[in-house]
Amino acid sequence: MRIAELSRRTGVPIPTIKYYMREGLLPQGERTGPNQARYGEEHVRRLRLARALVEVGGLPVASAREALALIFSSGVSEFDVLGKAQYALTPPRERAGDGAGDDAGDEAAAQVDELIARRGWQVKPGNPARRTLADALATLRRLGEDDYLDLLETYAETAEQLADTEVRAISRRGDLHSMAEAVVIWTALGDPVIASLRRLAQEARAARLLGGTAEDTS
Amino acid sequence: MRIAELSRRTGVPIPTIKYYMREGLLPQGERTGPNQARYGEEHVRRLRLARALVEVGGLPVASAREALALIFSSGVSEFDVLGKAQYALTPPRERAGDGAGDDAGDEAAAQVDELIARRGWQVKPGNPARRTLADALATLRRLGEDDYLDLLETYAETAEQLADTEVRAISRRGDLHSMAEAVVIWTALGDPVIASLRRLAQEARAARLLGGTAEDTS
Repeated sequence: MRIAELSRRTGVPIPTIKYYMREGLLPQGERTGPNQARYGEEHVRRLRLARALVEVGGLPVASAREALALIFSSGVSEFDVLGKAQYALTPPRERAGDGAGDDAGDEAAAQVDELIARRGWQVKPGNPARRTLADALATLRRLGEDDYLDLLETYAETAEQLADTEVRAISRRGDLHSMAEAVVIWTALGDPVIASLRRLAQEARAARLLGGTAEDTS
Repeated sequence: MRIAELSRRTGVPIPTIKYYMREGLLPQGERTGPNQARYGEEHVRRLRLARALVEVGGLPVASAREALALIFSSGVSEFDVLGKAQYALTPPRERAGDGAGDDAGDEAAAQVDELIARRGWQVKPGNPARRTLADALATLRRLGEDDYLDLLETYAETAEQLADTEVRAISRRGDLHSMAEAVVIWTALGDPVIASLRRLAQEARAARLLGGTAEDTS
């Protein structure tokens, strides 16, 4: 199909398609003339995925490129590709508090190590989520939000429940390609799904606990 | 204190402080001369909070400004300010799939309504998280990820657990100011905390279920 048809099929504007090709999220089409190229079904699939990661998942373009390259590659062992795809979806955050001249960063890193050990999680030292978590905990410490420590265990427990359901669902898929795709989609789109469900549930819970409206039946 | 001292105390560089003041995240200091201003403890507190929201929570500057203005205001009823602060922390996402020419968007919006009704959640029609969730679900539908429906109930249950713990912790705080501050901090920083814990737990779960290492004792 031509680029106009690719755009129509996916709802992605042509300038965005060209931008994704320049940035390496989407391979070039097959040249059929000086100003023409042909695109196939893999382009449709990959374009939808690229857009989902960037626009809905909120990923930086570099992270999306890395994740897409892994999905559409082959030749790595199973666990390897799944782990790499997941790491690609944890973009490094800016370091808040660098130069703050306190111990909150070191304390938070130690707290993350302790949490992982306490829960018996096997997690490689290179998992970038360790750092993301430590940064957030250090920030909370600097803000004097110390009662978050109680919540952290609840958060870790719910994270385990989510991970268990997700990993089981993914392991039921037959082939490695489909599993890697699920890791990428679910990791990236699960973030806004969870964040929005949490906000909806917070409002519902607050309405009962703090609002005390007429509809309250709890 | 002078701006240099404000920078030293918080670890925030002076150009960033000036940027935050221009963008309305931080009020100007008290003028003490043509090129000098004085800052107080409220500036220290508010600057730390602004940076946490933008750099660790990943909020757009406009959302952070709105949330900070609510925290440092008064004169609204309790539930009111907490709800408004929470809404400010759900930045509107770009619409993926506008013009995709399918029914996935409408179907997803209906699915969100059904989910909220099924769980008995009292949620106002204006809660922006409805839209964020519907966008993510529509994207998943377009990608052919239909087994996410099974996961959605698990996600909703864990969201309820998180919300219950969070709302209880916040309600234990004595004053409205402190409660509003906790809503803002916990909503914004809870996102990276949960996202990173989920990734760590996924790796741990996958190591057991798929990796089968020697340390596996499950």
